[in-house]
Amino acid sequence: MKLYHSPASPYVRKVMAVAIEAGLDGKIERINAAVSPVAADAAVSASNPLGKVPTLVTDDGLALYDSPVICEYLDSLGKGAKTFPAGGAARWLALQQQALGDGLLDAAILWRYESVLRPKELQWSKWSDGQMLKIDGSLAAIEAAVPGFGSRVDIGTITCGCALGYLDFRFADKDWRKGHPKAAAWFAKFDERPSMKATRPIDPNAKK
Amino acid sequence: MKLYHSPASPYVRKVMAVAIEAGLDGKIERINAAVSPVAADAAVSASNPLGKVPTLVTDDGLALYDSPVICEYLDSLGKGAKTFPAGGAARWLALQQQALGDGLLDAAILWRYESVLRPKELQWSKWSDGQMLKIDGSLAAIEAAVPGFGSRVDIGTITCGCALGYLDFRFADKDWRKGHPKAAAWFAKFDERPSMKATRPIDPNAKK
Repeated sequence: MKLYHSPASPYVRKVMAVAIEAGLDGKIERINAAVSPVAADAAVSASNPLGKVPTLVTDDGLALYDSPVICEYLDSLGKGAKTFPAGGAARWLALQQQALGDGLLDAAILWRYESVLRPKELQWSKWSDGQMLKIDGSLAAIEAAVPGFGSRVDIGTITCGCALGYLDFRFADKDWRKGHPKAAAWFAKFDERPSMKATRPIDPNAKK
Repeated sequence: MKLYHSPASPYVRKVMAVAIEAGLDGKIERINAAVSPVAADAAVSASNPLGKVPTLVTDDGLALYDSPVICEYLDSLGKGAKTFPAGGAARWLALQQQALGDGLLDAAILWRYESVLRPKELQWSKWSDGQMLKIDGSLAAIEAAVPGFGSRVDIGTITCGCALGYLDFRFADKDWRKGHPKAAAWFAKFDERPSMKATRPIDPNAKK
């Protein structure tokens, strides 16, 4: 399998964490790709017209996206404990929490496109504020959900973990732990799992 | 069940089309909600911190989002033909095509936020052009996928149908049928299904 990959993408992190949990990371060839909404990567776009990472090309040649689809596909191939509950209440809760973490990330990334990618004179504070409201609401929802996380390692907890890790990576000034002590305590432990430790984000533009 | 709903949202359309296919539309109480990234709706945000429609509150009180999660949940409750293939190649193809249609819609809606919601003097053509590139790439991918659609009625074809219907609704000037004859012929028939006919988009601000 081939994965279009960026070491800074939290959605790629999700995919790689699920791959590690499923014992499949050795079977994934990673291809670095730098993509942005204003600068497509031709190789990525040839497989995924949305031009985004992660995109997984399976051994059958099917290009899978977006991260929830790739994660569920990898989970179906793995032989270990499943990160996608097969059905019932456990599945709907895990999928809702995946959507919560992904939604926090979508808002965080739109906030960054507004503040980092867009020329300063075209920035709209009302837009940034609206996205930050979603980030803050999602953080509160994660804090409320943590008592139910227990020792669960599933697509819901993995995604929420990747979301919190992304706030550390790109929103360090935000100090998200303040006001979210349960999430902070949970994340301190969860982020030490081998699958999380091995996938911590790296800024590709950082000085070596 | 309660569904936060907007008659213009293509993601709501997906959910309602799946509900109709599953024979469940009579069990869904629809609550109208007007949401935008710069104007949250308090009732929606109380259930879904991302502040988006569709949001489904189940009879157990769990708030489900986003549309792929809601659609799969409704499909699991339905007794008729399934819109989510249970597994194997059929599932991955249907989920990939759902992501394709949703991705086209995500780009179309970001394009509209840029061009309709954002003040004119803050608009960035490079951003709009980047989103239009994703729309055009997705259209080409749908055109290429149509020979495999056959008579399939699943989450992949329903989502691609909702995406094409949204282009008719909000991008009429684009004339997407030009250059996409297979998609045009397929959609002409598919859009006549009762589940598609009953869910065609309505502009809430249109003059009566």
